[in-house]
Amino acid sequence: MPDIATLLEEERRVVEGALDRWLPPPGEYPERIHEAIRYSALNGGKRLRPIIALTATRALGLDGDEIVKSSCAVEYVHCCSLVLDDLPSMDNAMMRRGRPTTHRAFGTATAILAADALLMHAFKLVAENGVDVGASGPSIARAVTDLATAVGSFGMVGGQHVDLEVAGRETIDADTLEYIQSRKTGSLFMVSATVGGTLLGAPNERLAALRAYARNLGVAYQIIDDVLDAEGDAKTIGKDVGQDEGKNTFVTVHGPEAARRAAAKLAALAKSALDDVDGDPGVLVGIADYCLERIS
Amino acid sequence: MPDIATLLEEERRVVEGALDRWLPPPGEYPERIHEAIRYSALNGGKRLRPIIALTATRALGLDGDEIVKSSCAVEYVHCCSLVLDDLPSMDNAMMRRGRPTTHRAFGTATAILAADALLMHAFKLVAENGVDVGASGPSIARAVTDLATAVGSFGMVGGQHVDLEVAGRETIDADTLEYIQSRKTGSLFMVSATVGGTLLGAPNERLAALRAYARNLGVAYQIIDDVLDAEGDAKTIGKDVGQDEGKNTFVTVHGPEAARRAAAKLAALAKSALDDVDGDPGVLVGIADYCLERIS
Repeated sequence: MPDIATLLEEERRVVEGALDRWLPPPGEYPERIHEAIRYSALNGGKRLRPIIALTATRALGLDGDEIVKSSCAVEYVHCCSLVLDDLPSMDNAMMRRGRPTTHRAFGTATAILAADALLMHAFKLVAENGVDVGASGPSIARAVTDLATAVGSFGMVGGQHVDLEVAGRETIDADTLEYIQSRKTGSLFMVSATVGGTLLGAPNERLAALRAYARNLGVAYQIIDDVLDAEGDAKTIGKDVGQDEGKNTFVTVHGPEAARRAAAKLAALAKSALDDVDGDPGVLVGIADYCLERIS
Repeated sequence: MPDIATLLEEERRVVEGALDRWLPPPGEYPERIHEAIRYSALNGGKRLRPIIALTATRALGLDGDEIVKSSCAVEYVHCCSLVLDDLPSMDNAMMRRGRPTTHRAFGTATAILAADALLMHAFKLVAENGVDVGASGPSIARAVTDLATAVGSFGMVGGQHVDLEVAGRETIDADTLEYIQSRKTGSLFMVSATVGGTLLGAPNERLAALRAYARNLGVAYQIIDDVLDAEGDAKTIGKDVGQDEGKNTFVTVHGPEAARRAAAKLAALAKSALDDVDGDPGVLVGIADYCLERIS
């Protein structure tokens, strides 16, 4: 097996091509909205969620290539959430991945519309993918409801809402922080890890194992991001650092050392959940280790 | 058959109850976002889209009661679009159905999140509904992609985007106006009229007839709204009139008489499309006549 960094870079390049291919091409009418959609989705990034989608499907002994559309879908959803988080009424962020945020480049209204269009495109692709692979009605419905739940008021929307509610408070309790991180990051990691197996008919207990892996990895990943942001290594984190200033993160609440320990513990939990995947989860183990190495 | 106004009012009351029942109950955590969701969805309104969903399903000889969840879904999508249209960055509307708009009552960020949560809830309900009725994989996928397409960059998002682009221009050409109205209103009418038949396995040619009905009715309905807005009868239109001031509508582009004629022509086209429904489309005919009566 090539080392995990090389493998992730190869996967990232494949995903990048697919993300471009499955969007409406440039120049489609209305041009400006399609330009904003492509600007928001095709801007680099580690593409960890689609890579987890492909890798987790393969870990079940299934063909990752069959669910490329769904792996793009979870990344479009992620890009949608970044555009919305950056809005003036939310984090009011200026830069994202080294470029002006979508609302600064296209205006707030177009940014909101582009974000929702990306979200819609994601649902279209998951449903189409289900037909492509001959999935049953309940399997397609499950993939769609999983995605809707991950984004909705009990998922990312709920997490973002609570995050904004507590912004500016002196401190927040550990439960609230855990709620925010599991919903804002964990929810989409979970659906990323299971969408392939769901459409391809994997048994529930193996999907449950992947869900446990992804939930723990997602929260670990968020804590690692908080550590990197606090320590200000722009090169490693790949976005403007110090963005979390004034926000309550795991680091501000518990301190950097506790954050490191929590991330390590969650990564270990994620890996141990893979015992029940009953396939070949080697790359998923490697991804967990790789995430953790960023702060070690 | 009772007269159409009585029938629509009865349907409206049934729909209103279902819309309440299928939302997360008040008090669910995070409370404020669920309050905003309920505020945005349970605010009166004519509920024409869910009524069309139920009525069109029955016109095919199928059981409307089986697709109540999907009929709620299209109304949640409509409510989502109203919240977004009203935002400060879009129409900056103050009042909606006699109450402060969602962003004025809850703040802009919560309004955006509530709108997206409603959208997600709609997809969840359509998928669940598909399982309830034992729909096939391709049928569920079709219902989901139809809804996603109706909302996305080739549907409502595209229509709203072009509408904002042309706002403030002296005039717009007839094609652009037709594009805006067919996307902003026609798209969701089409999926409303077909979602039941799609999930319950109706043949494509009958769904195509319903789609033609709904598309023409949707644009007629929008033109009728424009006429009522321009003529300022607040009681009939049920929202603040004069909202369209400064906007290009069918009335400002073609004048009120041409608008009346166009609405009548589109309603006639809608009705004639029903010849191919091959069932009992009496109520759908009644709905088209009823819409037209509002300006006669």
